[in-house]
Amino acid sequence: MTGLYTEIADLVRARKPLVHHITNYVTVNDCANMTLNIGGSPIMADALEEAEEIAGLASALVLNMGTLNERTIPSMLAAGRAANRRGIPVVFDPVGAGAGKLRNETAERILEEVQITVLRGNISEIRFIAGLRSETKGVDASERDLADQGGAEEAAKSLARKLECVTAVTGPVDIVSDGKKVIRIENGHPLLAEITGTGCMCSSLTGACCGAVPESPLEAAVCALLCMGIAGELAYEKAGTEGNGSFRMALHDAVSRMNAETLAGRARIYEA
Amino acid sequence: MTGLYTEIADLVRARKPLVHHITNYVTVNDCANMTLNIGGSPIMADALEEAEEIAGLASALVLNMGTLNERTIPSMLAAGRAANRRGIPVVFDPVGAGAGKLRNETAERILEEVQITVLRGNISEIRFIAGLRSETKGVDASERDLADQGGAEEAAKSLARKLECVTAVTGPVDIVSDGKKVIRIENGHPLLAEITGTGCMCSSLTGACCGAVPESPLEAAVCALLCMGIAGELAYEKAGTEGNGSFRMALHDAVSRMNAETLAGRARIYEA
Amino acid sequence: MTGLYTEIADLVRARKPLVHHITNYVTVNDCANMTLNIGGSPIMADALEEAEEIAGLASALVLNMGTLNERTIPSMLAAGRAANRRGIPVVFDPVGAGAGKLRNETAERILEEVQITVLRGNISEIRFIAGLRSETKGVDASERDLADQGGAEEAAKSLARKLECVTAVTGPVDIVSDGKKVIRIENGHPLLAEITGTGCMCSSLTGACCGAVPESPLEAAVCALLCMGIAGELAYEKAGTEGNGSFRMALHDAVSRMNAETLAGRARIYEA
Repeated sequence: MTGLYTEIADLVRARKPLVHHITNYVTVNDCANMTLNIGGSPIMADALEEAEEIAGLASALVLNMGTLNERTIPSMLAAGRAANRRGIPVVFDPVGAGAGKLRNETAERILEEVQITVLRGNISEIRFIAGLRSETKGVDASERDLADQGGAEEAAKSLARKLECVTAVTGPVDIVSDGKKVIRIENGHPLLAEITGTGCMCSSLTGACCGAVPESPLEAAVCALLCMGIAGELAYEKAGTEGNGSFRMALHDAVSRMNAETLAGRARIYEA
Repeated sequence: MTGLYTEIADLVRARKPLVHHITNYVTVNDCANMTLNIGGSPIMADALEEAEEIAGLASALVLNMGTLNERTIPSMLAAGRAANRRGIPVVFDPVGAGAGKLRNETAERILEEVQITVLRGNISEIRFIAGLRSETKGVDASERDLADQGGAEEAAKSLARKLECVTAVTGPVDIVSDGKKVIRIENGHPLLAEITGTGCMCSSLTGACCGAVPESPLEAAVCALLCMGIAGELAYEKAGTEGNGSFRMALHDAVSRMNAETLAGRARIYEA
Repeated sequence: MTGLYTEIADLVRARKPLVHHITNYVTVNDCANMTLNIGGSPIMADALEEAEEIAGLASALVLNMGTLNERTIPSMLAAGRAANRRGIPVVFDPVGAGAGKLRNETAERILEEVQITVLRGNISEIRFIAGLRSETKGVDASERDLADQGGAEEAAKSLARKLECVTAVTGPVDIVSDGKKVIRIENGHPLLAEITGTGCMCSSLTGACCGAVPESPLEAAVCALLCMGIAGELAYEKAGTEGNGSFRMALHDAVSRMNAETLAGRARIYEA
């Protein structure tokens, strides 16, 4: 059942989409390199004065709120609206939603003012937003168990329906839903949680995949998460227990060598 | 005489402290990864609107003035005061103190408005601050010899007493003092000075260690500096003269594999 | 014909120039590490309040407009003017010139208000600026072929003459000109385009070389581009097709081991 899911990896290399990022300064270098690794072209530009114009050149926009500030929030909104006007995909990574008022309010505002194509987060962030959007304030992600796979799938599906977007939830098992289908991805490796930014990198890969096949956001998100999950497995096979530095380098190596064939050979995806 | 000094490494992994950083954009990725490497959990958040709230979630706060600006200085002060109110440890890294008015005045202001738990810097920064705080303006660190071990130990001790904090001075020989004890750490490798950010990374490791044992800042700072020094030795044993890129990767590897046993087997610490 | 071009690499290690950067947050860590790799000392400081003062301590200034904003543009201008007053070299990297109004206007303003020593960019950026400065608005770099080596050499030469600076154009073949001589560098490897920031790193290397021999900017720029090109070749010899992560690490390794002898043995430079 892999089909398009895996072929998108080759389409990204063929089409080399320009991916505009407004993202955090912690993992931005990894995000730029991952965009290149998968075959896209990154452009990071967060000044309000150019946010619209750069979004106008790009094939996809990634908004990542890892290190928000008063200068970048208006830029995210302006770039998001410009992307909507042009009809290019917008990937939103609500980093730390649930961890405080600024992040919560910014996530809410972006979701109100920008039509998101793919919402990519961890299960805590996704559940928080699901609550936020249904007016059930104070949803505490920590009360829900990461092991509650059924609950996560339901949250991903209902949130996708509510926001009219694709939700892509990363964790031990990844979940992607467009509100109808729910896809489960069982690739990955626990070491992915031991280095910073693998979530952000997933969002950048999703941006590159969406930029290559803007008409197929569900398949693009699945492909991006497959890339990261399988790269994590390959990185562990290469770096073993050498340590986090070696694993991180091997992860970049693996994504830069990824193609449809490798994905098809290793994908463990299931429709729920 | 290692005891608690080395055991803290295992406690960090067991307790996984959340370490809030307001830090520079040059080495922030290394700082986040080092926090993860030692077993902590990093959160980087520098907007004034969320500085207090995030500090309120954390087990320790790291303030690093590597790339100061008008936006982050008030955030550092707000986060620092919030950390003081909650009683969580505050690590302060006065990067570049002595190199210009903005840095000097900011360091002075932070030390006036925030009770620091550990002041972590190189000997030039520490000596500058020692002078600043005693109103002896214009102390020029370059006049004092790095080789003046006795002077460095005296500066570390008297500054710790004056600021009622622990001072942790990194260099060819590291010095940690709480104003009474003076601990000398003779681990490390010259290549640590050939890559950017090893000082910042030490401050992040100190934040993680303090977050795990907030009641023992002297021992926490010693453990953090031991981790970096011994990781430098292990990295050199692994990477040899391959070059700075290999050394840096091996350094991350070594910290991510560090534990009390390795520290105890290699620590060269002495009470002065 | 290598002579001074290659010897500068050893002079950087001997003189350890302090290189002040106002640069982007995407590749800043690579830029700091490359400055150290070649033997310089980096200082990143972009607050307006300290831009002048830090420029006053440095041996060279690098202005890189990769991620411009309203806060850093005035800092670049202030630091640039301070560097001019002191007579230290200024390297300008007009990242993304041609991609939008903010970048175009900022490049124009920097070139009007600051006397640049070396302008380091890719051929699209250089051609855009050549047009901008001759009032031929709207020059579209994409219309000119990267393969148009003669056109690139002419653009580099005439722009150098107009701006009274050295131009250093990186690409499959690098070109350096002071408006009289045109030097062609045929070292390098295609993988250099597969990781983010190699252009920025070239600018940082140029800053370090100029800081070591401020009287010889043409030779300094040639040395810097030789270092990167030859390091790219060495990195490929070491990392092969392991992937982008391994190549990037090997690139840092190679620059950190670079010296005049290696450069002289491998340089493929020609006067046009």
